[in-house]
Amino acid sequence: MEIVDLAELARKLFDDIRALSFDGVGITRDSYGSGETAAANYLRRFAEEQGLRVEVDRAANLVFSLSGVGPEQPAVWVGSHMDSVPRGGNFDGLAGIVAGLLCLVAQKQRGMGSQTALRVIALRGEESAWFGRAYVGSSAIFGKLSADDLQLRHRTSGQALSGYMEDVGADTVAIAAQQVLFDKTKAKAYLELHIEQGPVMVARKIALGIVPGIRGNVRHKRVTCIGQAGHSGAVPRWLRHDAVFAVAQLITRLDEHWRALLERGIDLVVTAGIIETDPAVHSISRIPETVNFSFEARSESRETLESFYQLMRSECSSIACERGVTFEFDRAIESAPAVMDKRICEAFERACDHIGIRWETVPSGAGHDASLFANAGIPSGMLFIRNDNGSHNPREAMEIDDFMLGVRVLARTIECL
Amino acid sequence: MEIVDLAELARKLFDDIRALSFDGVGITRDSYGSGETAAANYLRRFAEEQGLRVEVDRAANLVFSLSGVGPEQPAVWVGSHMDSVPRGGNFDGLAGIVAGLLCLVAQKQRGMGSQTALRVIALRGEESAWFGRAYVGSSAIFGKLSADDLQLRHRTSGQALSGYMEDVGADTVAIAAQQVLFDKTKAKAYLELHIEQGPVMVARKIALGIVPGIRGNVRHKRVTCIGQAGHSGAVPRWLRHDAVFAVAQLITRLDEHWRALLERGIDLVVTAGIIETDPAVHSISRIPETVNFSFEARSESRETLESFYQLMRSECSSIACERGVTFEFDRAIESAPAVMDKRICEAFERACDHIGIRWETVPSGAGHDASLFANAGIPSGMLFIRNDNGSHNPREAMEIDDFMLGVRVLARTIECL
Repeated sequence: MEIVDLAELARKLFDDIRALSFDGVGITRDSYGSGETAAANYLRRFAEEQGLRVEVDRAANLVFSLSGVGPEQPAVWVGSHMDSVPRGGNFDGLAGIVAGLLCLVAQKQRGMGSQTALRVIALRGEESAWFGRAYVGSSAIFGKLSADDLQLRHRTSGQALSGYMEDVGADTVAIAAQQVLFDKTKAKAYLELHIEQGPVMVARKIALGIVPGIRGNVRHKRVTCIGQAGHSGAVPRWLRHDAVFAVAQLITRLDEHWRALLERGIDLVVTAGIIETDPAVHSISRIPETVNFSFEARSESRETLESFYQLMRSECSSIACERGVTFEFDRAIESAPAVMDKRICEAFERACDHIGIRWETVPSGAGHDASLFANAGIPSGMLFIRNDNGSHNPREAMEIDDFMLGVRVLARTIECL
Repeated sequence: MEIVDLAELARKLFDDIRALSFDGVGITRDSYGSGETAAANYLRRFAEEQGLRVEVDRAANLVFSLSGVGPEQPAVWVGSHMDSVPRGGNFDGLAGIVAGLLCLVAQKQRGMGSQTALRVIALRGEESAWFGRAYVGSSAIFGKLSADDLQLRHRTSGQALSGYMEDVGADTVAIAAQQVLFDKTKAKAYLELHIEQGPVMVARKIALGIVPGIRGNVRHKRVTCIGQAGHSGAVPRWLRHDAVFAVAQLITRLDEHWRALLERGIDLVVTAGIIETDPAVHSISRIPETVNFSFEARSESRETLESFYQLMRSECSSIACERGVTFEFDRAIESAPAVMDKRICEAFERACDHIGIRWETVPSGAGHDASLFANAGIPSGMLFIRNDNGSHNPREAMEIDDFMLGVRVLARTIECL
């Protein structure tokens, strides 16, 4: 049986899991909770019915394979995550697992022969919405989850992550000791298919994106600009220290730099998601003396992040000097970019060309489990599937036809690695 | 008893009212609320103890006079406002009322004789911080408060101004009908003593300023810029509709226009005292889809106000088009510039010269109730008292010695009109 014949099966898997994750508004598959576990149990039953082997790793992630493929055998890994945000969409994460399972089902039906050894991993705990930390399941197997992380509290129950992980069978002693629980020497590659979470592919009318890298970021939760209060009518411009005008100027200058960098082909997004004068004292007729705002820059390039961050700081100094204001920064929080493997990207390209599918390079702005595999030294690659309305909401809209194109590219790439 | 002997009484009045308005940080006398009413009750008690007559006008402002002065008698009016901004200073407004009361007390103690008939008015609701509209108390008596104004909402309770005014006894039916509730034919003049709210007089080392005119203004309490939310990592610049970047660009453009106009000698100040993303949904990693902000421009020239306002609207249209955002405006609130009466200014000058006080001409950047009286056709004049650290903050610093000089000039001017 060929991949193209599995569209109905894909539809059934998505529909069945949607039905058991529906919360009345959207999809809720809570990390290490009943929603995620219900999906895991469904996937396990499905795989067993298909005659696939199902194992559970020491972080309670599920691993599917053909029964002829032994653990000693180097394999290509395909995976994504089972969990969702509260009231999220059905495809974020699940699409990558279903894609991997369809590849396994196709291999099974064709008979092993000389096909590439394949393992499909259904990861738990990718969404930071539940415990405030992303990539828990993949971090745990690479020794990247700390004892502190295990004490993170669930958003509603307030109970620790460790207890939740133990309840589903994870070895939290080994995880807390940051043991590496994944045999990297037996992983030839890690491939992840995922819906795009931004609007680029819909806008550009392309069904498939090949991801060259996953953006890292640098953030300040809070920057405070401090000027001087004054009566809005009585202080002339040359005597003002207006924090709102200062921050507006900063953001406008950052926007100009951003535009200039994009014109030079540099990958960057810049966001100030939060801005506010002090509600306790602000008023129409008061020159605002403080403004709090958040700062975030994301790029595939660590150098771009560092240099844009320095640019931001030097613009703050220049505006501070010019306007007689000061800027105060909380601790900068950094997350490293991950580069996808060039050889795998080329294999994706060849597979697309072979099948005759138009594709484009689409950098991943959002984070993914693939960055954990890549930064652990496993050659990794990601395919994006066109999706409308973003993610983390019930209005996610991926077409099954687009998805099946992605599965075909994935299956062919697996065979070519 | 002479004015100079009343310094201790002035100090006591300021101290007592400061004590009952203290909010832990500064002074809060909320318009038509408990803070303003507490000050009103104190003033009423004080005046009654001094044997003065106390009346309440139909907009709930207090009017003090000697009992021998009938309503049919033409009088000089002296006044200012009782309310303050949140966490403001004690002298803004209150100084002018205390000055008037000291003049009345001095007249009372000297006995009526041939002294000028004097009425002192303690106005409510001058500060726009509470309902987004300034001069409510003086506007109400001149038929300048509209039914729409009466529907303006309180900054924290969200309740309408009309209810607040009714609670303190104002005749909101007459006010909404824009009846003139003040008999202009019986007002020979309106005089207002006020602290300077800018830094000019301290810098120039002069205790007294004579005000030739008052800036008008045009305002929006709330302009909303509406863009589109999105994942901060996943939406590239060309697909963003970021409300924060749009508003930053608007403010920066207005700042550039402002600077250019100042270079041409045009009188103007521009302020956005309030700016905020939506606290219910904003986050570091979410492209902000809405920003609310306030807009204010002030000028001595009505033409400048009109043309700068149109410039602001056209910049909004241009940015809306460029960035795919929209701007929504609440009702524009305008306040006309006012020219002080030349004859009264000259009387102030003669009084200063007579007492031997150095004075300068100091235009008023801030608005004052005096502009309502002036624009109603009543010859009006204002005296500024030197004050450090501006106003609308707890660090206002007026010396009682400077204040008493102002009261002496006021008292002498009253007798000469």
